[in-house]
Amino acid sequence: MSRILLINPNSSDGLTRAIQDTAQHVVHSSTTVESVNPSAGPAVIEGSYDEALATYHLVAEIEHAERRASADAYVIACFGDPGLDAARELTTKPVVGIAQAAIALAQFTGATFSIVSTLPRVRNHLRLLVDNSGASSRLASLKTPNLGVLAFHEDGEEAERVLAQAAAEAVNEDGAEAIILGCAGMSGLARSLSDELGVPVIDPVEAACKLAESLIELDLGTSKAMTYQAPTQKIYN
Amino acid sequence: MSRILLINPNSSDGLTRAIQDTAQHVVHSSTTVESVNPSAGPAVIEGSYDEALATYHLVAEIEHAERRASADAYVIACFGDPGLDAARELTTKPVVGIAQAAIALAQFTGATFSIVSTLPRVRNHLRLLVDNSGASSRLASLKTPNLGVLAFHEDGEEAERVLAQAAAEAVNEDGAEAIILGCAGMSGLARSLSDELGVPVIDPVEAACKLAESLIELDLGTSKAMTYQAPTQKIYN
Amino acid sequence: MSRILLINPNSSDGLTRAIQDTAQHVVHSSTTVESVNPSAGPAVIEGSYDEALATYHLVAEIEHAERRASADAYVIACFGDPGLDAARELTTKPVVGIAQAAIALAQFTGATFSIVSTLPRVRNHLRLLVDNSGASSRLASLKTPNLGVLAFHEDGEEAERVLAQAAAEAVNEDGAEAIILGCAGMSGLARSLSDELGVPVIDPVEAACKLAESLIELDLGTSKAMTYQAPTQKIYN
Amino acid sequence: MSRILLINPNSSDGLTRAIQDTAQHVVHSSTTVESVNPSAGPAVIEGSYDEALATYHLVAEIEHAERRASADAYVIACFGDPGLDAARELTTKPVVGIAQAAIALAQFTGATFSIVSTLPRVRNHLRLLVDNSGASSRLASLKTPNLGVLAFHEDGEEAERVLAQAAAEAVNEDGAEAIILGCAGMSGLARSLSDELGVPVIDPVEAACKLAESLIELDLGTSKAMTYQAPTQKIYN
Amino acid sequence: MSRILLINPNSSDGLTRAIQDTAQHVVHSSTTVESVNPSAGPAVIEGSYDEALATYHLVAEIEHAERRASADAYVIACFGDPGLDAARELTTKPVVGIAQAAIALAQFTGATFSIVSTLPRVRNHLRLLVDNSGASSRLASLKTPNLGVLAFHEDGEEAERVLAQAAAEAVNEDGAEAIILGCAGMSGLARSLSDELGVPVIDPVEAACKLAESLIELDLGTSKAMTYQAPTQKIYN
Amino acid sequence: MSRILLINPNSSDGLTRAIQDTAQHVVHSSTTVESVNPSAGPAVIEGSYDEALATYHLVAEIEHAERRASADAYVIACFGDPGLDAARELTTKPVVGIAQAAIALAQFTGATFSIVSTLPRVRNHLRLLVDNSGASSRLASLKTPNLGVLAFHEDGEEAERVLAQAAAEAVNEDGAEAIILGCAGMSGLARSLSDELGVPVIDPVEAACKLAESLIELDLGTSKAMTYQAPTQKIYN
Repeated sequence: MSRILLINPNSSDGLTRAIQDTAQHVVHSSTTVESVNPSAGPAVIEGSYDEALATYHLVAEIEHAERRASADAYVIACFGDPGLDAARELTTKPVVGIAQAAIALAQFTGATFSIVSTLPRVRNHLRLLVDNSGASSRLASLKTPNLGVLAFHEDGEEAERVLAQAAAEAVNEDGAEAIILGCAGMSGLARSLSDELGVPVIDPVEAACKLAESLIELDLGTSKAMTYQAPTQKIYN
Repeated sequence: MSRILLINPNSSDGLTRAIQDTAQHVVHSSTTVESVNPSAGPAVIEGSYDEALATYHLVAEIEHAERRASADAYVIACFGDPGLDAARELTTKPVVGIAQAAIALAQFTGATFSIVSTLPRVRNHLRLLVDNSGASSRLASLKTPNLGVLAFHEDGEEAERVLAQAAAEAVNEDGAEAIILGCAGMSGLARSLSDELGVPVIDPVEAACKLAESLIELDLGTSKAMTYQAPTQKIYN
Repeated sequence: MSRILLINPNSSDGLTRAIQDTAQHVVHSSTTVESVNPSAGPAVIEGSYDEALATYHLVAEIEHAERRASADAYVIACFGDPGLDAARELTTKPVVGIAQAAIALAQFTGATFSIVSTLPRVRNHLRLLVDNSGASSRLASLKTPNLGVLAFHEDGEEAERVLAQAAAEAVNEDGAEAIILGCAGMSGLARSLSDELGVPVIDPVEAACKLAESLIELDLGTSKAMTYQAPTQKIYN
Repeated sequence: MSRILLINPNSSDGLTRAIQDTAQHVVHSSTTVESVNPSAGPAVIEGSYDEALATYHLVAEIEHAERRASADAYVIACFGDPGLDAARELTTKPVVGIAQAAIALAQFTGATFSIVSTLPRVRNHLRLLVDNSGASSRLASLKTPNLGVLAFHEDGEEAERVLAQAAAEAVNEDGAEAIILGCAGMSGLARSLSDELGVPVIDPVEAACKLAESLIELDLGTSKAMTYQAPTQKIYN
Repeated sequence: MSRILLINPNSSDGLTRAIQDTAQHVVHSSTTVESVNPSAGPAVIEGSYDEALATYHLVAEIEHAERRASADAYVIACFGDPGLDAARELTTKPVVGIAQAAIALAQFTGATFSIVSTLPRVRNHLRLLVDNSGASSRLASLKTPNLGVLAFHEDGEEAERVLAQAAAEAVNEDGAEAIILGCAGMSGLARSLSDELGVPVIDPVEAACKLAESLIELDLGTSKAMTYQAPTQKIYN
Repeated sequence: MSRILLINPNSSDGLTRAIQDTAQHVVHSSTTVESVNPSAGPAVIEGSYDEALATYHLVAEIEHAERRASADAYVIACFGDPGLDAARELTTKPVVGIAQAAIALAQFTGATFSIVSTLPRVRNHLRLLVDNSGASSRLASLKTPNLGVLAFHEDGEEAERVLAQAAAEAVNEDGAEAIILGCAGMSGLARSLSDELGVPVIDPVEAACKLAESLIELDLGTSKAMTYQAPTQKIYN
């Protein structure tokens, strides 16, 4: 019996429910997924300011869960992987970011990949994420077709059309052999898009939940040897 | 019901049986693992010549399995990931190399890792493997404590002592926060070594089998968009 | 008349006062430096969890200052450069992190440099910082001689001895041609250490204040073209 | 008197004869070139599966030649450099791959180069080859104008037209200052293409043969210090 | 009282006077800038041959100034940073190249930048400069709109139009968030271009003079620890 | 009949004669080597200042030779490859630097190499050379055992002992599979050192002369497409 706590770091309950649906479908029946989001913070994360606020509340969720010992692994469900290192300091359990998970799985599906994400303003953030994950030589392109994080909850049909077009460009013009959906808000669209494009499409929430489940089952947690040691004792005002 | 075909690319039946034991334990009850090895080729793979011969026979195993449609995913159980790209051309199913799998999982357990492998002569091969996987900036060290691939089947106790000492050096002197066992022949030793060292230790066969199982369940196969298209039609003499 | 707002992102008033002293000395008489710190958050920043909390409060300081239009440039006075990108989204003024500033100046003083910082647990964080600043090929070594951020305020003499020894090792054994003091808490020690070692020693607070002053005088602010656009309109709960 | 054994790793006798002609013209009169190909294996190498099969037979050719002591240096005449490391384990003589040779010479002819090769499916393979040779920052472009390896033996005129057009694009649009012919099947076309384009064009077979001849004359063989030691003793089933 | 010696390494008196005007405006009233150029050497530097000649004469200017002890810092006012390392061997004072200075400041103004320079023939030289400064991952594009170094002194209006168009392309098509003027001959155009484009534009002469002034005030000179030691004693014929 | 002009860029006639001896022995009887050195400039090149002076005179030698049309290829015989790009602008003939040549050949002899050079002060210069040649991942170590360039002409026996010891350390401790002699002054020592160490030792003058000869015979010159175009027309004062 494995328990994954999936934390949507923004304060959109609707998005949390959508992610929960996706997550529940991909884990085994012996695994439970609980999805939460902070009640405070930005409704969506569309930049570094939003991320700074959301990370603060995210960290509190991890602390709360640790006190309750309510999870065997954590998934951070925003494609910028906010607070990943902070969270790892707070627990011996595995902590999986959905971007890191999707990028890790992409290499098993094709020699190259593209990320289709949201707004042009996050391009540099995503580039750093890919660089630091070591995958930059496999990146065919970053597509940011000017979609807000909540686009799929506002005008889903149009958003899916824009997403599909950007992904098709990545495959046909940029040489992408696989596609990563670069936003938790796109969760649930991978299979139909894969059918349409004829290449693997990776849903980052699904990727992260399967990896979290695997890490639990392999008994692999967060190393406390150095970088992710518990915070040093000090005064927190 | 998922079926993983685990191919040990060398011709050591004993090693194949040992790997099968490891693999069976980490997958779900709904997943079957079948382990095979070619009857021809080198008894162990300890260099590029051995790898060239083994790859030839490995590829034939994949072709045979594809004709029988007997697998939903393939695992190549040698830490050099021989024949990975060739195998991917032959199937739409996922193909997972144990080195690529272990390196992918390592980033979820610590900020850095060391690989403890076999003979000094494979160092450069491993360095290229790590470089091409994009993990070189996270590599704390490559340890090659002069252990043959079959050392654990010949004088297991001594081999385990040498392995443990090399891994301890990696943690204490090189800054490794996690350890990857860099040889299929070391399979089954991760948990006790982790207990001894106090850091996560990744068994590459376990890592690959869980990833293969996950890819099947996520319905993610090998992209046929470009690099891994089926071989072109031609005469094979 | 240029106004620099120097923000110490942790909640140690004593550290803030020490930094203010350093900063005031290096700017021109026509430049004012105001130093502040949040009243909430960790007393020191010694890891990613601390940084997550401190960034939240730091961002509020920037927002407050922007509303008052009280600064022509901002300096973030913690060697991890927390919240740098978030702060840049909030202003058209320049925002300078002390690590980025020190690393930028180091290349004008020697062909290589070492950073002498605090605790081993921040090594990976510093490595990423140096990698992302593009200076990794000039980095001679990272020294983390197990000094807490407040060491210089607790037992200053002993801390200075440990710091000087680590810096001397960097020069004599690692090939460092210049030294960067890798913590705001070390501010004020550069000149005496430089005299002792015979190589340039860069105080990151001084470096950042001079760069902030220069950027103001050159009329160079934060580009709003893409990455650092103001946050998108949304609900903040 | 130097003896080069040029091994075409695929089983196309016609291609072997064409390569032999090219090779014989560029070496000194005191150097003999003998060209061979395995009788088994793929007629052409157009992917990793083909390469896996061809490498197996290539290795046997090297072993055969070593037993006869019939060569002072080996050239592997396929632009993927298949079996290069395996071959080096089998001999103390120099072993030169035609891709490695052409990339090495390109830096003496221009600041950048493009490779004009065959099918889009080999792009990722070539990218890895260039990355691992350290030349990626000098690569202007990889052109894969959908030419099969035997195109020049089937409809030579049309193939030459397509090749010339791709090379012209590389020079005029991509900034290539020199061109590498990225297939042994293109051997013999360098001079006329260079006249047409006005930039150096490197024939990889010629490059490899001259380098092999030079290595013999400089008395530089394959180091047996570590990576290319003879295979360890073991059972080959 | 700080004294900057600004050396225009080519022999164009007119260019030297223009640079002097720019430089004088950006430093404090307590700083003097003296601008000189060798009387011999190329009128402009538009390639490596020109640079070789100009460096010879530049070095003599540094030696002359050192004998007179007439400067507290040196600025080399050509965007290829010719003779930078040689100059540093001759002095304990800081030596600032205008390219290195502009690239260093660019990171404080935007996440990416483009360089708009002169002739296509210098592209490779600039690429190496950016690579060696560690900024290549932030480089949006190199624009070389076929402008000679003296274009702004011959037909200034047309040259400014061409420059503005290239810079606009960099911002609108290549994703540049800031622009570096890649030639000393463009000095004085930054502010109007910045107003036109709406992004920060960095004048490299201004950047270098402010950095030189800051280094003097921070008491940071050239390390004599290793690379920039004074030349060894030997015969100079 | 091929004519190589070998230019020793410093003004040591004795060194020039020694190099000429080495060079003459490795080329074919149909190739002539003429060795020259400028009469002015530093007696040896042991840093960037020396290099700046020497390059000026070197360039004049190339110009002189071009006017006489006296060479089919040029070799620059100093391990820093001074003036390489400048020289290439002046000719359509191949120009080979001895460092670039030795590094290019090293990859055909072993998976890794070390450079044994002269003074510690040139380490950073050599590191940049290796980085820009793309060989940094194959570099086992840079050894600078404090040998002056003329050491072998002053106390040859002691210098050879120091060189041999540094090379042995590179092989036994640093993992070097081949050795590059990192100074023209070491020319002639490769064979005996190779016998002593048991690994390939590359004499850079020999490597460059063979490569120059090969480039002539392959009819490969310097591309005039962009970077190495002839200098633009301008006034040279």
